[in-house]
Amino acid sequence: MSQKNCFIGQSGGPTVAINASLAGVVAQCKKEGYEHIYGMINGIKGLLEDHYIDLGELFKDEESIENLKATPAMYLGSCRFKLPTINLAEGTYEKLFKKFEDMHITDVFYIGGNDSMDTVAKLSTYAKTVNSSIRFIGIPKTIDNDLMGTDHTPGFGSAAKYVASSMLEIFYDSAIYKLNAVTIVEIMGRNAGWLTAASALARENGATVPDLIYLPEVPFDTEKFLEDIREKFKEKSSIIIAVSEGIKDANGQYLDQDSKYTKKDAFGHVLHSGTGKVLETIVYKEFRCKVRSIELNVLQRCAMHIASKNDIEESFEIGQFAVTSALNNETGIMIVSKRESDMPYKVHYETMDVLKVANLEHKIPVEWINDAHNDITPALHDYLYPLIQGEMAIKYTNGIPTYLDITHLKNNIVKE
Amino acid sequence: MSQKNCFIGQSGGPTVAINASLAGVVAQCKKEGYEHIYGMINGIKGLLEDHYIDLGELFKDEESIENLKATPAMYLGSCRFKLPTINLAEGTYEKLFKKFEDMHITDVFYIGGNDSMDTVAKLSTYAKTVNSSIRFIGIPKTIDNDLMGTDHTPGFGSAAKYVASSMLEIFYDSAIYKLNAVTIVEIMGRNAGWLTAASALARENGATVPDLIYLPEVPFDTEKFLEDIREKFKEKSSIIIAVSEGIKDANGQYLDQDSKYTKKDAFGHVLHSGTGKVLETIVYKEFRCKVRSIELNVLQRCAMHIASKNDIEESFEIGQFAVTSALNNETGIMIVSKRESDMPYKVHYETMDVLKVANLEHKIPVEWINDAHNDITPALHDYLYPLIQGEMAIKYTNGIPTYLDITHLKNNIVKE
Repeated sequence: MSQKNCFIGQSGGPTVAINASLAGVVAQCKKEGYEHIYGMINGIKGLLEDHYIDLGELFKDEESIENLKATPAMYLGSCRFKLPTINLAEGTYEKLFKKFEDMHITDVFYIGGNDSMDTVAKLSTYAKTVNSSIRFIGIPKTIDNDLMGTDHTPGFGSAAKYVASSMLEIFYDSAIYKLNAVTIVEIMGRNAGWLTAASALARENGATVPDLIYLPEVPFDTEKFLEDIREKFKEKSSIIIAVSEGIKDANGQYLDQDSKYTKKDAFGHVLHSGTGKVLETIVYKEFRCKVRSIELNVLQRCAMHIASKNDIEESFEIGQFAVTSALNNETGIMIVSKRESDMPYKVHYETMDVLKVANLEHKIPVEWINDAHNDITPALHDYLYPLIQGEMAIKYTNGIPTYLDITHLKNNIVKE
Repeated sequence: MSQKNCFIGQSGGPTVAINASLAGVVAQCKKEGYEHIYGMINGIKGLLEDHYIDLGELFKDEESIENLKATPAMYLGSCRFKLPTINLAEGTYEKLFKKFEDMHITDVFYIGGNDSMDTVAKLSTYAKTVNSSIRFIGIPKTIDNDLMGTDHTPGFGSAAKYVASSMLEIFYDSAIYKLNAVTIVEIMGRNAGWLTAASALARENGATVPDLIYLPEVPFDTEKFLEDIREKFKEKSSIIIAVSEGIKDANGQYLDQDSKYTKKDAFGHVLHSGTGKVLETIVYKEFRCKVRSIELNVLQRCAMHIASKNDIEESFEIGQFAVTSALNNETGIMIVSKRESDMPYKVHYETMDVLKVANLEHKIPVEWINDAHNDITPALHDYLYPLIQGEMAIKYTNGIPTYLDITHLKNNIVKE
């Protein structure tokens, strides 16, 4: 049997489950007898600069792999580099493939979101044109849960658990006063409201929170929003609202479009951070009551200490399944999960043509949003519920969580 | 032996340890054979409206007391009501004391911060003037750690643990890109920087975060701040800064004084929420790099799921000690903790005249801040370290933490 060598890369924004997928790939590669398991430092961009490490050397025992599994964000670092179109930058592809051939690479595993799947699609397309047998496998991750073709994405369940638990704790925090108050919790999700919808799971044990949920899949109407609050004030004094950062009006205009904080990322996506503040002002002007906006911010994607066990275990399994798929000679694919049943919760994994995934967005179906457009339906609840179940046994040292050291990385870079 | 009956109230802003102190009072009162253990609903303000419940009835077994101990915020609800000066509102005091006498109250325990200790001071002073034998005991709580006379305040250690752990997770989140970036984390603390200082505990296991710490105890100089960042950029690309919401310039002016989000609470204190955003703009203008500000917001005071065991256990013990002190016929006092040693960590409890506490603020001594005014000293580290140690075994149900139901409270109000 011929030698097997692979590259693994991580790309896009962080989640707490990406290292679990990395751990799954490493563990399975070791099991399958891979000679070299290389990790790109800062994704494909780092590889172009010869920055990579030997993961096989760094993860020799089961304990180190378990520690990797329980470390948030990206052990290998990330990049927001979009591989140029093939015919515009053939030199870049030639350089990459020469490196792959020189190092006898048989497989490339790339863990990321939508934009990373675009990279997998381009590399596997190029491989066909040059008759390369290297296999390119995409492993999904994103807290936004907005990838097509998969039941849900690794990293989403943990972010959802953080959102639901934080919403519950905000409910306790807000319940203490007997005065009219509105708390607006701004949750990540550019065009897909999955994470905002997950705030409804805070109700599981009886807490009546959130009172209202606004999702980017349906137009946001400010008058209707104020009317919703007015109605809620008839029943109670403290109102808590979950709102997606990406809500848009009927003209498709983001609420914080004109905010001075509006920024764009390397892909030209607007980075929202003002929706909660904009709503805070609107609510205060109307009701002159106590109003507070809370932006869950990056904590929702990096809070490993409250990760979902289901999410982390699946992310690991998906990493393992990626290796098995490569050895089945698949390429240009992404690993997807398919749900067999909600209760008991059961999923299995399949592969899917990455071209059917890249650059598409999976949003909440409108039938999973209530008619008043201010809450979710039971069907969406049943979909979300299993994804946040189970807790990781995070180790604490000196009073804080124990995560794998990532500061040593720069010293371990292998130079050719 | 004569009958013993008490009232317990909670007041001020929430922490995750206030219910542990309430649980301590209830547990000790039961042990000491109190006939009735009443809880004021929404503090002294609720009591004036005859809103109270019978805690002895609600907490009959050890399990229910354990559940109370592990529930964040205030089981009894809070108020931000400042008791008027005695000679201006004698009627209010007469009304309260008539109620106490009618109900054969022997002791009143009031759990709160600075303003609540003011209430204890006034009630015990009034008691003397009318020759009442009712004892008034203050039990401290505040995430700000700014009460005089005590080594530290219940609730602070848990908030500090949340801040340090979140800072660590933000470090992992920010470390993934190789580009110049500044992350500003805004932490609660109006005039005292204890909680911001606690962010330094994120370094315990090797993470190099935060890079810079700015505290309200020393003047904030924008030029020096930019120079500090410039220096850090020479060593690294991703800089994380911990900043107190209450930093002030050399003229004592808050940075967000003119922010449109500036609000005041019932006591006239400015509620800060713009410091991080103000700095974000300043840094962006100077460096034109990626800048993000993160406001930890109320999560730092309500995140029971990552509470410090030392904090919760001490808060419970302080509740118990309050009852013992009352039975020693003390009144007009607050329970304080005195540290015997840092390592091994050892504290004991004492009582202190509440007049020496009320309306004073305990700030970080300047000698515990480094000369450059951008970090803490080892002495402050050693003070903070023990306070975040230990983890609570929080129960999860349906994927979210299990806390005691507080929604039923309004139905349990005892009407006279």
